[in-house]
Amino acid sequence: MTLKRTHTCGELTAKNIGDEVVLNGWVGPRRDLGGVIFIDLRDRYGITQVVFTETDQALHKKAEELRAEYVVGIKGTVISRGEENLNPNLVTGEIEVEATELVFYSEAETPPFEIKDNITTNEEVRLKYRYLDLRRAEMQQKLMLRSKAYQAIRSYYHKNDFAEVETPVLMKSTPEGARDYLVPSRVNEGKFFALPQSPQTYKQLLMVSGFDRYFQIVKCFRDEDLRADRQPEFTQVDVEMSFVNEDDIYEYHEGLMKMIFKETIGVDIQTPFPRMSYDDAMNTYGSDKPDTRFGLEFVDFSDIVKDAEFKVFSGTVKNGGGVVGITVPGQGDMGRGAIDRLTDRVKKETGAGGLIYIKMQEDGPLCSVGKFLTEEIVAEMVTASGAQKGDLVLILAGPKPSVLEQLGQLRLMMGKEFNLIDESAFNLLWVTDFPLLEWDEETRRYHAMHHPFTSPKEEDMDKLETAPGEVKARAYDLVLNGSEIGGGSIRIHNRKVQQRMFELLGINEQEAEEKFGFLLSAFKYGAPPHGGIALGLDRIVMLLTGAKSLRDVIAFPKNQKAQSTMDNSPDVVDKSQLDELHIALKKKPNL
Amino acid sequence: MTLKRTHTCGELTAKNIGDEVVLNGWVGPRRDLGGVIFIDLRDRYGITQVVFTETDQALHKKAEELRAEYVVGIKGTVISRGEENLNPNLVTGEIEVEATELVFYSEAETPPFEIKDNITTNEEVRLKYRYLDLRRAEMQQKLMLRSKAYQAIRSYYHKNDFAEVETPVLMKSTPEGARDYLVPSRVNEGKFFALPQSPQTYKQLLMVSGFDRYFQIVKCFRDEDLRADRQPEFTQVDVEMSFVNEDDIYEYHEGLMKMIFKETIGVDIQTPFPRMSYDDAMNTYGSDKPDTRFGLEFVDFSDIVKDAEFKVFSGTVKNGGGVVGITVPGQGDMGRGAIDRLTDRVKKETGAGGLIYIKMQEDGPLCSVGKFLTEEIVAEMVTASGAQKGDLVLILAGPKPSVLEQLGQLRLMMGKEFNLIDESAFNLLWVTDFPLLEWDEETRRYHAMHHPFTSPKEEDMDKLETAPGEVKARAYDLVLNGSEIGGGSIRIHNRKVQQRMFELLGINEQEAEEKFGFLLSAFKYGAPPHGGIALGLDRIVMLLTGAKSLRDVIAFPKNQKAQSTMDNSPDVVDKSQLDELHIALKKKPNL
Repeated sequence: MTLKRTHTCGELTAKNIGDEVVLNGWVGPRRDLGGVIFIDLRDRYGITQVVFTETDQALHKKAEELRAEYVVGIKGTVISRGEENLNPNLVTGEIEVEATELVFYSEAETPPFEIKDNITTNEEVRLKYRYLDLRRAEMQQKLMLRSKAYQAIRSYYHKNDFAEVETPVLMKSTPEGARDYLVPSRVNEGKFFALPQSPQTYKQLLMVSGFDRYFQIVKCFRDEDLRADRQPEFTQVDVEMSFVNEDDIYEYHEGLMKMIFKETIGVDIQTPFPRMSYDDAMNTYGSDKPDTRFGLEFVDFSDIVKDAEFKVFSGTVKNGGGVVGITVPGQGDMGRGAIDRLTDRVKKETGAGGLIYIKMQEDGPLCSVGKFLTEEIVAEMVTASGAQKGDLVLILAGPKPSVLEQLGQLRLMMGKEFNLIDESAFNLLWVTDFPLLEWDEETRRYHAMHHPFTSPKEEDMDKLETAPGEVKARAYDLVLNGSEIGGGSIRIHNRKVQQRMFELLGINEQEAEEKFGFLLSAFKYGAPPHGGIALGLDRIVMLLTGAKSLRDVIAFPKNQKAQSTMDNSPDVVDKSQLDELHIALKKKPNL
Repeated sequence: MTLKRTHTCGELTAKNIGDEVVLNGWVGPRRDLGGVIFIDLRDRYGITQVVFTETDQALHKKAEELRAEYVVGIKGTVISRGEENLNPNLVTGEIEVEATELVFYSEAETPPFEIKDNITTNEEVRLKYRYLDLRRAEMQQKLMLRSKAYQAIRSYYHKNDFAEVETPVLMKSTPEGARDYLVPSRVNEGKFFALPQSPQTYKQLLMVSGFDRYFQIVKCFRDEDLRADRQPEFTQVDVEMSFVNEDDIYEYHEGLMKMIFKETIGVDIQTPFPRMSYDDAMNTYGSDKPDTRFGLEFVDFSDIVKDAEFKVFSGTVKNGGGVVGITVPGQGDMGRGAIDRLTDRVKKETGAGGLIYIKMQEDGPLCSVGKFLTEEIVAEMVTASGAQKGDLVLILAGPKPSVLEQLGQLRLMMGKEFNLIDESAFNLLWVTDFPLLEWDEETRRYHAMHHPFTSPKEEDMDKLETAPGEVKARAYDLVLNGSEIGGGSIRIHNRKVQQRMFELLGINEQEAEEKFGFLLSAFKYGAPPHGGIALGLDRIVMLLTGAKSLRDVIAFPKNQKAQSTMDNSPDVVDKSQLDELHIALKKKPNL
């Protein structure tokens, strides 16, 4: 028998005093005080204190059996707690419910960890008992914020006339970039579906179909070796628009982000967002997703040191490399030991060959390689860096772009180490004008920096074959506090340009036809100019909630071995299932 | 260069006359009338007539190149069409745009079929060129209605405090009922994920976690032999609630359906919906998803004929079978040939052994087996049937429940044949009190009629082991016009009851632990009473749009061989991909 709930555990206040109510929920620790029993009754909405007096002996006896995490229904009367027992931290802190009826729905064994915030239980245990971990208020709050985010996002797109369309999960395998998850077909022997890495081609086809504006919140899949914070399946806000340019995408998605921040955490963010070209981002922050919540912008010393006798500097510059640095305020008195440790860390974590510094001491700059440089050069470097007394200038030299990336990592280290980051800030930034291609030394060919459907810039179109490395793309990323939360581009909508692009990527005509023939064919029948974006919802929610891991904002995530230890998946399956799918486990070679 | 759109092709009216506008869209057939060129420009929002006069010779020349399905941008001035040329069928029928600028975005070859409604092109061609099929207004309208339905549904649940939670797509294989789609794991050699047939266990775990109310619009997968209208992947509105009984589920989902009908097709449906027990549905309509838009309710003649000399009747009744019929109004004059053809069809399509009839002629009832029955029995049958002069009573005899199902199919045939169905009606109905189990002759064991997590009725709990076939379940289906559009149940939330249920289904303790150990374990730590429902969104949208097939309300469906001919999936994959997944194609045995 279920007592029909009249209220949740999060809503009764002094206004309800005298009401007869029914609450359902989970029992917190029982407190027996001089014959009176108190429990906290908990549901998703809050906590209400329930009291069992000795007036009803049978009821009181029953209440003595209550243990933590029992699930019960309680009927009772709302009474005042009295001035002295008010709990101002609870919505329900003015009242308690004096029970007149108690129904046990479910008993409970002692859980493997306590149901409360800030537990130190290791994550493997939390994941194994995920259904208990999700009972904790801090986890519920994160997922409820995620729930709100979905609807804020969808309302925004629907209000703006976007068509929400579902694209297939069982699709064609076109392994470009990451590995596909495959699904063997039973009905079509020897053939396989793939799970989508993104609905990219489908959303472009929807534009060819004239849907004009499309969006979807959709699961995507990548079979990658799991880095610290990746999941085999992730959630993407997927968007495509026809007859637009970059500015249209920026404008709509600044509106979207404004709405998400407002609806989920009540924060007003300023629009439009700053924009920064890829080149500027690399030269100023050493990253294509710069964290602009703090300074430490790069200073390029190359020109100053290009003729120095110190070969590490002049040689680097002569070979096209760079000598670049950042100024860390107030760290000019860093001791020898600290600097040595920092140098080791920089070498180890960034791969830089060494770390050079200028300490801005009371009696003038002290440069770690001062004996190889003239005073004039050091002085010029100090001037260029803008360093003041007490500051520390850190300098790296090396080939580009590596040296920029290394300095970018050093900058982040310093930002964290010396608390230079404003943790309350939300800095959104468009990074624009990405290169179309990147050269891969290993395979000795170009890869698409975004994907093969990204349009080159109009003005670079004639460099496609002659100087492909210089071609800029109509591609952009959205960056929040140093994390890439989205990326997109204006696409190619012309069959011939698409074919040239495939050729550049080493995809020959036959292969292009096999893999993307339907898209090339679609372009034959009238394709509109179009472009779009994909936003990483998991990461956005992680940043909004301040979670430390994607796993904390996904209800049932996989661990870093792509396993769910809760239900033990993936798992072995019956041979008969494989037989039906016309596949077999590969035998291991005899050793 | 893209001309920045100022208006869509569906919004300009007489109010805009004199405005300079930019439209983007697809070109319909070009009409040249005495040197003036007219085209219809089309986008998702409508059609606007564009005119090119001879004033600007260069522009006029360019316009002569326009062909159907070219994609263009047009700048021009809104002018009146004049009284005589008004098109009252178009929002934009009062105006046309006199072009001053024309930009070609994309040329187009002649499409394989015309972009218009009511084409007769065969479906395989439409599916191969799906991106063109979706350009047709009737397809766009269906998908736009679907888009609206998503948001109506989600708004409803969010407004009612449901938590929207995503559950995993990569999960554990627990083949119960239909076959799982499997996904080999690369990282975990020899192991497989399965795609969800439903997020059933996850939503129950969310209840154990205290999420109280959950919903999700989610893709589910079943690897079945595709019947006329099934898809390998389908979309489910998935819901679970804690501390509820059947009435709560009914009430919330009557509200949901009311909202969907209102928001998508503007129809007000009446709530609450009628409810009918499974037994009544079977005995009255021969179906657990009766189409109640028309009558032809069953009449049970068994009592009347139980002692008849006609052994087909009396023998059937003695063996526990039934003699049942329906009265078809006004068909009493059906000729011999028509009756013979009907009899053949009934035998072939329903598997019934034969068809017996009573024609209500001018001079009294004429029964096809009259010579074996007394006049009194025939008269009693006529009275029981309520048949009037001119009506036709159709009778089947046979073992139950087959005879009821056969008569149910005959009833539907008659309803369609004689246009007894009110096609404008939307009859919603709850079918309740399903049996918990159904006996499978082939495997000689019980199967769960809904699924193994459905709660038996409290009052039948002690019959679980002694008379399992008689146990009713707390299960319900939602039926719309004879189609099941949803189903659900109050679930088991007690570990011991769940174990008894597994035993009934022949799942031994070890197997239960391997497959569902995490659920049984979750029940140990305090599970609330809970129940839910899953609605078939594809089917609901199909019924709302009047589509003839699920494929018409899915953007990129599979054909009946589970293939997408557009992108040729599923397809062969590289052996290297299989190697990485530790699987191989099974060799065919040498013949």
